[in-house]
Amino acid sequence: MMNSDKYPSKLLQDAVESIGTLPGVGRRSALKLALHLLRQPVENVRHFTSSIDRLRNEVKYCSVCRMISDGDICGICSDAKRDRKTICVVESVQDVMSIEKTRQYTGVYHVLGGIISPIDGTGPSDLTIDELTARVSSLASEFPPEDVEVIFALSGDVEGETTEFYIYRKLAPYHIKVSALARGLGFGDDLDYADELTLGRSIANRQIFKP
Amino acid sequence: MMNSDKYPSKLLQDAVESIGTLPGVGRRSALKLALHLLRQPVENVRHFTSSIDRLRNEVKYCSVCRMISDGDICGICSDAKRDRKTICVVESVQDVMSIEKTRQYTGVYHVLGGIISPIDGTGPSDLTIDELTARVSSLASEFPPEDVEVIFALSGDVEGETTEFYIYRKLAPYHIKVSALARGLGFGDDLDYADELTLGRSIANRQIFKP
Repeated sequence: MMNSDKYPSKLLQDAVESIGTLPGVGRRSALKLALHLLRQPVENVRHFTSSIDRLRNEVKYCSVCRMISDGDICGICSDAKRDRKTICVVESVQDVMSIEKTRQYTGVYHVLGGIISPIDGTGPSDLTIDELTARVSSLASEFPPEDVEVIFALSGDVEGETTEFYIYRKLAPYHIKVSALARGLGFGDDLDYADELTLGRSIANRQIFKP
Repeated sequence: MMNSDKYPSKLLQDAVESIGTLPGVGRRSALKLALHLLRQPVENVRHFTSSIDRLRNEVKYCSVCRMISDGDICGICSDAKRDRKTICVVESVQDVMSIEKTRQYTGVYHVLGGIISPIDGTGPSDLTIDELTARVSSLASEFPPEDVEVIFALSGDVEGETTEFYIYRKLAPYHIKVSALARGLGFGDDLDYADELTLGRSIANRQIFKP
């Protein structure tokens, strides 16, 4: 009775299918969102779609750290107050934003653009590891290598550890300092509720008590 | 340190703000969706935005029932097997789709485009009530009025009832049949869990037992 058995309009069906490709958006929500957009003024919808098109087509990546940026070099890399000898290695743009929110970090970043994952078919050459190695090589000739530090801030799973180990070996020839995010119980966490792995590592990696 | 204190790119910020205007999408999810779109191939993003633009700019509304449609008359109104003397009055496009899914209804529809709501500032003139009256007037002159039926399928709240009553009075001069969706306990519902209003009306509107 209806086109395509379900949708009263091919245009609606196309929009619902497109919106349904977004992660976490099912068919039902996609329909709700399409009908919501249909009720908005034409200029609002045009602004909605053009802001997405512009993001995808015009965004740049910092030539130093691969963070997204409006210019050739991002705001962090071009900030003279940041310590460019300290590089925090993260998987994604979102990780940079999370760490920046803490206001605890004054070094710079390197965005890998993913993590080594044989299952997903992501190998070292798909990531910005060569660019990181080049940065470290250049810093290690400009400064005493022991003043240069790379901090791993990757996920704590097997893939994160594989990626860390791969990069660690790549950077070994430069004799710089390599560190990783502290892992342990969260602040305020109760011992009762901690999983065994976290608790075990928390004991093994215990820190000097500084009251 | 970053543009706008939070976002590494104005383009990202614009896209996140646009996506965040969607109902049920918070800032955090909007950022996730923007970064997701950024990782997709350019042509996929172009297809995504153009399907939304086309929906908003090119969709038509059926000149008879106001359902969205690719042509001047929708698939339901142009289907000779549907009984055009029976008109189910609904608030929205989505309601038509819900009722169609039941495969229980063989009449046609009338989409009001909203509901009378003084709080939201929606009055009768914002809805397609005049068009409905014209349809009924024309049917009541073409057929015996008692063969023409309008079925109210609006929400069961005060606004729905206000709208039903308003339309009921508008249609009174044509002496057609007017009905409303059956309301009562849901099929399989337990008496224990029914709210008092539903249970009370369910008793008052009890139906002849047909085993």
